[in-house]
Amino acid sequence: MLNFTFKNQTEILFGKGQIKKVSDRLPDDARVLLLYGGGSIKKNGIYDQVLTALNGNEVTEFSGVEPNPSYETLIEAVELAREKSVNFILAVGGGSVIDGAKFVAAAVNFDGEPWDILAKGASFYDPLPIGAVLTLPATGSESNGNSVVTKKATSQKLGFSSETVQPQFAVLDPEYTFSLPKKQISNGVVDAFVHVIEQYLTYPVNAPIQDRFAEGILQTLIEEGPKGLANPEDYDVRANIMWSATMALNGLIGRGVPQDWATHMIGHELTALYNLDHAQTLAIVLPALMQVQQEQKKEKILQLGRRVFGLTFTGATEQQAIRETIFAVTQFFEGMGVKTKMSDYDLQGDTLDQAIDRIIDNLDKNGMTKLGEHGDIDLAKTRDILSLAK
Amino acid sequence: MLNFTFKNQTEILFGKGQIKKVSDRLPDDARVLLLYGGGSIKKNGIYDQVLTALNGNEVTEFSGVEPNPSYETLIEAVELAREKSVNFILAVGGGSVIDGAKFVAAAVNFDGEPWDILAKGASFYDPLPIGAVLTLPATGSESNGNSVVTKKATSQKLGFSSETVQPQFAVLDPEYTFSLPKKQISNGVVDAFVHVIEQYLTYPVNAPIQDRFAEGILQTLIEEGPKGLANPEDYDVRANIMWSATMALNGLIGRGVPQDWATHMIGHELTALYNLDHAQTLAIVLPALMQVQQEQKKEKILQLGRRVFGLTFTGATEQQAIRETIFAVTQFFEGMGVKTKMSDYDLQGDTLDQAIDRIIDNLDKNGMTKLGEHGDIDLAKTRDILSLAK
Repeated sequence: MLNFTFKNQTEILFGKGQIKKVSDRLPDDARVLLLYGGGSIKKNGIYDQVLTALNGNEVTEFSGVEPNPSYETLIEAVELAREKSVNFILAVGGGSVIDGAKFVAAAVNFDGEPWDILAKGASFYDPLPIGAVLTLPATGSESNGNSVVTKKATSQKLGFSSETVQPQFAVLDPEYTFSLPKKQISNGVVDAFVHVIEQYLTYPVNAPIQDRFAEGILQTLIEEGPKGLANPEDYDVRANIMWSATMALNGLIGRGVPQDWATHMIGHELTALYNLDHAQTLAIVLPALMQVQQEQKKEKILQLGRRVFGLTFTGATEQQAIRETIFAVTQFFEGMGVKTKMSDYDLQGDTLDQAIDRIIDNLDKNGMTKLGEHGDIDLAKTRDILSLAK
Repeated sequence: MLNFTFKNQTEILFGKGQIKKVSDRLPDDARVLLLYGGGSIKKNGIYDQVLTALNGNEVTEFSGVEPNPSYETLIEAVELAREKSVNFILAVGGGSVIDGAKFVAAAVNFDGEPWDILAKGASFYDPLPIGAVLTLPATGSESNGNSVVTKKATSQKLGFSSETVQPQFAVLDPEYTFSLPKKQISNGVVDAFVHVIEQYLTYPVNAPIQDRFAEGILQTLIEEGPKGLANPEDYDVRANIMWSATMALNGLIGRGVPQDWATHMIGHELTALYNLDHAQTLAIVLPALMQVQQEQKKEKILQLGRRVFGLTFTGATEQQAIRETIFAVTQFFEGMGVKTKMSDYDLQGDTLDQAIDRIIDNLDKNGMTKLGEHGDIDLAKTRDILSLAK
């Protein structure tokens, strides 16, 4: 096991009706910026519950945070937050809204061009405290310090990470996910699955607790994901998906082990260029990456096949066993309704080869030339991966 | 899944050499009470490393905290802490020292008889902050708010729990366990195993993440425990045991599921009366309790057998399968060198029946008359359990 430090400061408020606990957790003189997305929370009743919980506090609303939240939109929220002197941000939504809240929190007291927080890793001080009300289980953003923001003007999708912007509390009420479109559940389950894979599918370092926790989350997503699509109002199923997605990226399973994240880095460019959903990009890249990196990841790919997918590999060569495991991953994604080839998606008029060239260019521009747990995924390897994913 | 709230405030500093990070985590004007046990840390070099890390701070030492820390000893530490106006407690040791530190932390500013914190659940204010340097993986005390203290004068072993006395940081350096006597590793592994069982072996509530995390810890303890005895200086083995013991009782696996703790409550009286090691009492009580509660715990006992011990139960009736699983638990404890019958231990001249009478009397006196996840373990059932454990 590798050395590590770990603490997770977010208080999880899990279950039916937990929204009621929010008011106790706000500052005494709270001036709240209520940040949300496209307005679905007004249709499904969550908005009303949140306003009831905030009763008595000064509330400023900012809606319209889009999926893959844009710098252009968030900077408007920053200005509003400054103008109203808010001292707390309550993010109500999925990972995009919560990621957006983190950027707003960091930018409000930032002296200079806030894009530098993302582009140059600029230091920031006195970020606003954040709370989260999760409506879409997927990214784990509700209990980590990660934020990814897209600048539309330049098609750049960049991230920053700081525990100073990690939510102080997160309300996880599975009922809030009942009215989600199926596509969001599909994407969320695939996203959480790949978050686990990024921290698990590397090379063994004799860390059985981390391995087994990761495998437990993967097995649960494989079992519960399809049920989540078939029975949208099964509370337990949604609860298990929600807790899986949070545990997938709250830091725990990745401590003391190597991490990969190449699938994410390559996928981000697909979203930045062609506006594919985050999970769609992961479903495209991961199986191809597993194939190209099969030698480096051999032991863990076979462990994934055996322990998570229950494959026995009877009579199979090692190469066949690896292929079987990659096929199982692909089948799981497709079964969840998320396609796994670039040709399945709208590349806005570009040919597949043009798209690959543009992705490679963008990765080069953003310095993503040594990806993966060994730093051995250079642009040539990335091209191999994308070619397999055509 | 049941509703829950969860946060764990302890920063884990895991791995070789992490003691160096301690000085950064003390208050600026730290006046440290250094609390430890019998002095083994002076022989194995840990004491010197701690003093080096504390360099520049005012340090007051209090040694002699015994296994199953006594109120009589700890109250002396409270007096010393008051006299020296310490503002931080650094506990260096196992669960006993850390449990003791929590009591001292709570008692220092307590106005009245500190025993009331344990006996009457009295509220306390302004507890001192605590840090922990763990030398014995077992109790999980390094990252929870639980403390158990024994009053020798009355043979009472009582606990309190508050996150206000939970350590702010915990150094987990597996090398610090290399010089432990084998018996301590045996006890630690059994203790951690039963901590998981108390939160797992109840009844199913459709919480697969919690189940699988629990099973992952149990499997790891079963695999690594014997290796820990055979190869005391295998870093990875000790690291895996250490991380297992912390994860077993840091709150995570018990959230959203029912919990039992009857084995602990009954076991505590065996320690209070006959000074048996905590783990020894658990190894005595658990198999008998599983037998008596087999109907209530049926599903989870069978799941334990299949998933953790890998039993196939081919051709077995349900009753036989349950018996096989209980036998596997007993064999694991015995294999770790921890005996599982009361008759294996020194009951200080009492007969087995006298001992049972005294345990039942004590449980009655301490109000432990409705134990277990259903509250259905009354004194008659406890007598059945103890009779099976003779």
